[in-house]
Amino acid sequence: MTSQPLVWLNGALVPIDTARIAPGDRGFTLGDGLFETLAIRDTVPERWQAHLTRLSTGAAILGLPLPPLDLLALTAALTAANGLRDGVLRLTVTRGEGPRGVLPPATPNPTVLATLAPRAAPLPPARLCLAQVTRRNEHSPLARIKSLNYLDNILARQEAQRRDCDDALLLNTQGRIAESTIANLFAVRDGALFTPPVSEGALPGVMRAELLARGARETPLGVEDIAQADELLLTSSLGIRSVASCEGRSYASFAMAERLRAELA
Amino acid sequence: MTSQPLVWLNGALVPIDTARIAPGDRGFTLGDGLFETLAIRDTVPERWQAHLTRLSTGAAILGLPLPPLDLLALTAALTAANGLRDGVLRLTVTRGEGPRGVLPPATPNPTVLATLAPRAAPLPPARLCLAQVTRRNEHSPLARIKSLNYLDNILARQEAQRRDCDDALLLNTQGRIAESTIANLFAVRDGALFTPPVSEGALPGVMRAELLARGARETPLGVEDIAQADELLLTSSLGIRSVASCEGRSYASFAMAERLRAELA
Repeated sequence: MTSQPLVWLNGALVPIDTARIAPGDRGFTLGDGLFETLAIRDTVPERWQAHLTRLSTGAAILGLPLPPLDLLALTAALTAANGLRDGVLRLTVTRGEGPRGVLPPATPNPTVLATLAPRAAPLPPARLCLAQVTRRNEHSPLARIKSLNYLDNILARQEAQRRDCDDALLLNTQGRIAESTIANLFAVRDGALFTPPVSEGALPGVMRAELLARGARETPLGVEDIAQADELLLTSSLGIRSVASCEGRSYASFAMAERLRAELA
Repeated sequence: MTSQPLVWLNGALVPIDTARIAPGDRGFTLGDGLFETLAIRDTVPERWQAHLTRLSTGAAILGLPLPPLDLLALTAALTAANGLRDGVLRLTVTRGEGPRGVLPPATPNPTVLATLAPRAAPLPPARLCLAQVTRRNEHSPLARIKSLNYLDNILARQEAQRRDCDDALLLNTQGRIAESTIANLFAVRDGALFTPPVSEGALPGVMRAELLARGARETPLGVEDIAQADELLLTSSLGIRSVASCEGRSYASFAMAERLRAELA
């Protein structure tokens, strides 16, 4: 119990105001890293194996040697130190410090940072727009990993704010739906759930995988498919959010989202 | 003159080992920022007005309020403090600290970091390959600004190393040439210089602009145009590099690169 939040940095609990990221950290200079966001319930990170698997996959794609990581012990220490049993854990892994230049050092010394925030209140159904300012690049491996390169999502989220929306859907370079700036999108049609495949630029979300395991199907979704859907859902590791509207079309049905939230509770 | 390099961080000269980036800096957590790399010659940054213009353009696109910045005074202080009259200055500007989430804070407090490195030795003609691992997203505004989201370039640079090349050319989503991981590409044909327009995914490089002002022309370049060129050049703010080969094709002419280097010296 301290007045200042404690973070976990490279193996030690540190007050956030003294935790130091080096100015030469490639996470800071080049966005060279990955992160995961996990819901913490009663001091345990939900679906932590799936998050670690995704992190490992991303690290393999980046050629970033992942240090050994005991996520349960880390979470236990961080929740205890901050006096929080529930919350949101963000785990960031970067390639660590490196000299000038794009090529990573041959033997990187990764930076591992974990921070804990209180759990956010449930959100009302989202008003969505289709991002016009940018497109998600489904041709890049980055579309399939949770990297630190978030500026396309930031640009789309800013556009949503300008247009009085809560979130924006990013289209891929073909003009089909990829995902929202922080969530996967599912469309309900005649009682069935559909979501774009990863090859369309959808991040392989952990909650998305949960819904696929429960019978949702992958299929490319065009803008017209969204407009014709009975219901839309946004899924992230922090939960399932209903959608109230997208580009002028209103959705009156929240039944599937409510059912899934009840099942997953 | 100190044994440890000094960096310029938010208005103060600080030994690099004590300079602290906050763990909540959005440059670190989301790649939310920009940078510029400038050649320093006799304590003066080359083409600094063009670099500041590009930085301002990027900041406007990101909605990032750029703090007032006296680049000449900063460079004078940094070169004097480090006992270097020539070198490479990297200027990084991020959106600074922010709470959890993609949406930037309403009133950001940007982080400004400037670091100085010794000038690198001239490089031999580059052996290039065409990156297969990823594509540059010409649909995104990020292709037109020098942002911290460098992972596509890092992936391509790693591929170049695996394939025993010095650098890789990134194709755009249409399969045409965009740029290399750290430089713009120019092709010479019948004595004339051609380079892809920014709409093809080419970063608007400062040296590129210099060559355009001297008569080079913008035109989309396909892979076959590269193969049929008489000579290839890589340009960056640090200079003009000749190209020895690309994907098996060797280039014997370095005349244009040598002429331009002499003109610009």
